[in-house]
Amino acid sequence: MKKHKNNLDFLKPDIFNSFIDLLEKKDTKKIFKKIKNFHPSEIASYIQILDVKHRKQLLNILSKDFDSKILVELEPSFLQKIVNEIELKIIYKAINELDSDDAAIIIGSLDDEKKKLVLSKISRKERTFIEDNLSYDENTAGRLMQLELVRIPVHSNVGDVIDYLRKKRTLPKVFYDLYIVDKNQKLVGTIELSAIISSSRNVKISNIMKRSELSVHSSLDQEDVADIFRKRNLTSIAVIDDDRKLLGTINVDDIVDVIDDEAQEDILKLAGVGEQDFYGAIISITKARFAWLFFNLIAAFFASYVIKNFEGTIEKLAILAALMPIVASMGGCSGTQSLTTAVRAIAMKQLTWSNALRSVGKEVSVGMINGVIFSAASFFLTYYWFQELLLSFVISFSLFLNLIFGSFFGIFIPIFLTKKGVDPAIASGTFVTMFTDIVGFFMFLSLATIFLI
Amino acid sequence: MKKHKNNLDFLKPDIFNSFIDLLEKKDTKKIFKKIKNFHPSEIASYIQILDVKHRKQLLNILSKDFDSKILVELEPSFLQKIVNEIELKIIYKAINELDSDDAAIIIGSLDDEKKKLVLSKISRKERTFIEDNLSYDENTAGRLMQLELVRIPVHSNVGDVIDYLRKKRTLPKVFYDLYIVDKNQKLVGTIELSAIISSSRNVKISNIMKRSELSVHSSLDQEDVADIFRKRNLTSIAVIDDDRKLLGTINVDDIVDVIDDEAQEDILKLAGVGEQDFYGAIISITKARFAWLFFNLIAAFFASYVIKNFEGTIEKLAILAALMPIVASMGGCSGTQSLTTAVRAIAMKQLTWSNALRSVGKEVSVGMINGVIFSAASFFLTYYWFQELLLSFVISFSLFLNLIFGSFFGIFIPIFLTKKGVDPAIASGTFVTMFTDIVGFFMFLSLATIFLI
Repeated sequence: MKKHKNNLDFLKPDIFNSFIDLLEKKDTKKIFKKIKNFHPSEIASYIQILDVKHRKQLLNILSKDFDSKILVELEPSFLQKIVNEIELKIIYKAINELDSDDAAIIIGSLDDEKKKLVLSKISRKERTFIEDNLSYDENTAGRLMQLELVRIPVHSNVGDVIDYLRKKRTLPKVFYDLYIVDKNQKLVGTIELSAIISSSRNVKISNIMKRSELSVHSSLDQEDVADIFRKRNLTSIAVIDDDRKLLGTINVDDIVDVIDDEAQEDILKLAGVGEQDFYGAIISITKARFAWLFFNLIAAFFASYVIKNFEGTIEKLAILAALMPIVASMGGCSGTQSLTTAVRAIAMKQLTWSNALRSVGKEVSVGMINGVIFSAASFFLTYYWFQELLLSFVISFSLFLNLIFGSFFGIFIPIFLTKKGVDPAIASGTFVTMFTDIVGFFMFLSLATIFLI
Repeated sequence: MKKHKNNLDFLKPDIFNSFIDLLEKKDTKKIFKKIKNFHPSEIASYIQILDVKHRKQLLNILSKDFDSKILVELEPSFLQKIVNEIELKIIYKAINELDSDDAAIIIGSLDDEKKKLVLSKISRKERTFIEDNLSYDENTAGRLMQLELVRIPVHSNVGDVIDYLRKKRTLPKVFYDLYIVDKNQKLVGTIELSAIISSSRNVKISNIMKRSELSVHSSLDQEDVADIFRKRNLTSIAVIDDDRKLLGTINVDDIVDVIDDEAQEDILKLAGVGEQDFYGAIISITKARFAWLFFNLIAAFFASYVIKNFEGTIEKLAILAALMPIVASMGGCSGTQSLTTAVRAIAMKQLTWSNALRSVGKEVSVGMINGVIFSAASFFLTYYWFQELLLSFVISFSLFLNLIFGSFFGIFIPIFLTKKGVDPAIASGTFVTMFTDIVGFFMFLSLATIFLI
């Protein structure tokens, strides 16, 4: 019994290290032999993981017979970073071989001077394709679409379509749906390949096509396109202009990338990491993280200001300084939990203005239940440590209130920001922890001043 | 010029509220008229957002002519929650109509008693299908696959295949690839529909099929399956057993759900929200959040213990208590940024053991640069506030060190946990903030004790 090969094995340290050994030894022959069995995406992974020296060596070896698909499989930001290490002849070849959307990504990664040079050397048709693509805004359906698709006149029958597909030489590499257009190139319907192939030759296309209105305008945001794919389980979708003229098509494999990017963005924004990229240069990463650290510094000084007003209380009872971070930190924790749930639910269109009130109620209830549990726990821990009943009461009561505040702020702030048109993922975090810190310190020290001093 | 209809309009508050009005008025006729234009996924969205009373009303209205696809479009956890509100006859109908993988999800959402009842009432073939599916572990390729697929004997030619597809009545609803098997039902290749349709009838399948080894074992984790889809831009993949026998197929629309879930999981785990779900009951959400709050409480008491050792210092200079949270909070912020970047890069297979050292170096460099900037900022802010040179020095120097520590812990801890086989998303957060709090308080108060007391 042959063990089934796991397709992710190539990333294992021993396999990767033996590959580096080959690069060190400059054993080009063995490297070629090894790479021959690799998928372009696997080679792209290696290029991304290798250090500069080995990467250049590998690119050099590959350049003799470069598979254009490798360029497509690189992260766009990584491609932009290393595109200068790639010979121009490889770029020309790639642009001629690839679908228009992929070719446009490669052109887009070049600096202005090279972009001009490359555009001037490719065929006129290709150039028009790419300049058209680049004319759409980033992150829209227009930028995402490929122009290669199969158009079928609405009066055809199944036999005509099959004959046409057999004869035509410039079909897209892979396609799943055919688009039915009228004589003005306006979209009137779509049909899945599987429907064509399982129908008799004399069936009229207009009888089996879907007259669905399902298409997207070229200006639609790619996240909304992804949402339609997700909801309708689509494999491809038509992109149209204001007059319903068919412009291009978006395939599901491009949407998979959009979904990845979208989730990535939410995660990174929530941690205040901005648009930064794992392959970015140190200086651009530092910049991306600057804003969140900056707001956090301001928020921290605000919290300091609140504490400073209780200087007298702390002088009399320094142990309060040791206990107050517990209240702030637990509130922040509860707030972050609610916040993350809310931001994700908003992104997935599960939390809308329509069920906002109910959702806030639910979060506050969760905060109350955990509030009861953890205020009891902190009461006993504090009492065990200091044997002071009033001190234990002050910490547990303020912790209870702060957990509830945390869960309230955690859901209210992103809902409020969304309503105001601000992206809740990017702006909520600092606000929530600022509120829970300030409320936590204030309540704890106020109660302590009243009951203990 | 007709404005293009945006497919997400149905979630707009006014449209949603007018729908609730119809439910309030029990205007069944108008509701039917409205729903007729809805896609099952849109109806599912409404069912998920409506409150209990209106949801029951809507389900009641729909039950007369229930579209089975609605059940598939509900979030599995939501389906589990409301499955008892759905009449059994609707469940029977759905199981007969849907693909095996979807039918299995519906059966899986029933409680044991109902599951037995339903399984006893469906056809034997259907029952075997579903019991087979449920016998695979959750989150594996086996559980994800559907059994409906098109098998083609390896010795066929294109004409045979087209004739077969035209004649066969029980084809999958939609299919993109055909699977080529030998006489023992072992997988020998795959072919895309578009390749069939664009070849002449007399071409041999074995000449145009891909002899690719690309298939997954039924036990492979669904996240690894998603990774293969992502890397190879696939539309479907074959699932095989130990003997390479063809078991089923996974289509890209199911993978889109896996990718969503995967990203969702990482986001929620990072915020300590566990496996909780937006539609979960209050009590299960509370439970899911308990662990992180619990560890945070322990970590916070540890930090308190560190501060308590400096009680004498704080008694003498209470203002230190106001400033120390700044150092801890900035370190935590820097740590969370590095952590999130690292966890995401690990999930996307961009950060592996092979480039770990380089990545740690990069994070620490970022921490150092931001450390210089923000320690300068905090120096000036503190000096402006208190006019104390030594105090400003103490805060800015400890803040500098803690930003570096934060970025180091932030990347080191997830790499270390991954190496040890622990999921870095779920466990890293508490560790990182615990370390940055403890290190931050300790350094600030130590330096203060040395220089200021």
